[in-house]
Amino acid sequence: MADALPKSLEHLVERLSTLPGVGRRTAERLAHHLVRAPQAEALSIADAIREAREKIRPCSVCRAPAESDPCPICADPARDPALVLVVETARDLKAVEDSGAWKGRYHVLGGRVSPIEGVGPDDLALDALVARATEGVREVVLATNPDLEGDGTALHVEKALAPTGVKVSRLARGVPAGGSLEYLSKTVLAEALDHRR
Amino acid sequence: MADALPKSLEHLVERLSTLPGVGRRTAERLAHHLVRAPQAEALSIADAIREAREKIRPCSVCRAPAESDPCPICADPARDPALVLVVETARDLKAVEDSGAWKGRYHVLGGRVSPIEGVGPDDLALDALVARATEGVREVVLATNPDLEGDGTALHVEKALAPTGVKVSRLARGVPAGGSLEYLSKTVLAEALDHRR
Repeated sequence: MADALPKSLEHLVERLSTLPGVGRRTAERLAHHLVRAPQAEALSIADAIREAREKIRPCSVCRAPAESDPCPICADPARDPALVLVVETARDLKAVEDSGAWKGRYHVLGGRVSPIEGVGPDDLALDALVARATEGVREVVLATNPDLEGDGTALHVEKALAPTGVKVSRLARGVPAGGSLEYLSKTVLAEALDHRR
Repeated sequence: MADALPKSLEHLVERLSTLPGVGRRTAERLAHHLVRAPQAEALSIADAIREAREKIRPCSVCRAPAESDPCPICADPARDPALVLVVETARDLKAVEDSGAWKGRYHVLGGRVSPIEGVGPDDLALDALVARATEGVREVVLATNPDLEGDGTALHVEKALAPTGVKVSRLARGVPAGGSLEYLSKTVLAEALDHRR
């Protein structure tokens, strides 16, 4: 019996399987869709990936993915540069930003300390944060996810910031322990910002 | 509050949302992964989509996606051209082919009759099948999915083939009603082929 999938289709399945949360079955379903869908529709996805990779770089100040450097938030004079909110990922940044409750700036760590996944503090954008903290920052708000690894990450950030003497606060315990920042309602995020300690 | 997603990233999210089974949240997760992953990894997905679109065409005989025309199965002299097994999709073809139980050839309808989804018999590759049936085909095995729409589709195929006088059989009732061909075990598929009626 011959291999039933053409080589380039098999290759596409294999490539799609590298995406997070996409197993072999899902990759096969997506690949077959991509070769059957209208040509323009399929190629627009390939183009969008390429375009995003060409245009998007981490902001040299806050590390958020952006098309300009500094990013629009870091370049916005209306956003208080003395207030820096630290998040694990750009998706968390978006969740906070969408709440409309934060008028300061951000710092994206680019992950979380996780011994299981082999991610240590050195893998995060901590040095850049410490450098920022010594340049007119009044307060750093730690908005890591309210779970074990997020709390651990926050401790690492706090320790790294200690020598700078900058004021460090945490989101109020309005964020439910064990939850995921990305999926919280705007109200919960806004309250947690109001009551930060 | 500014839009927190850069334009090209938002565009990528929007494009990925067009994939079947991919909602806004999943698209955001995939898009952020694609801009954070190593450059080569992300671009290899874009390239694989483009390459598959360039190389893959429906076989002019059986309509299966293939890089050559006719496809390797239609071009294989060891596969009996007088026996044609009809499937809804190329994924079903792969399921049957992986079972190793079919030594004839295939015909891919490219869908199923579904009034709810606005798919009628005219949307399927029926004419091509009827034309094949008049050219030395001894038996057509209907292997549509064993559910309401699959059975309905089989009836349409049978009706279209009636004027040709070709022998038409169905998979034996080894395939469990309500199931999905793609997910059946090889043994179940092999048995259903053995007992076709």
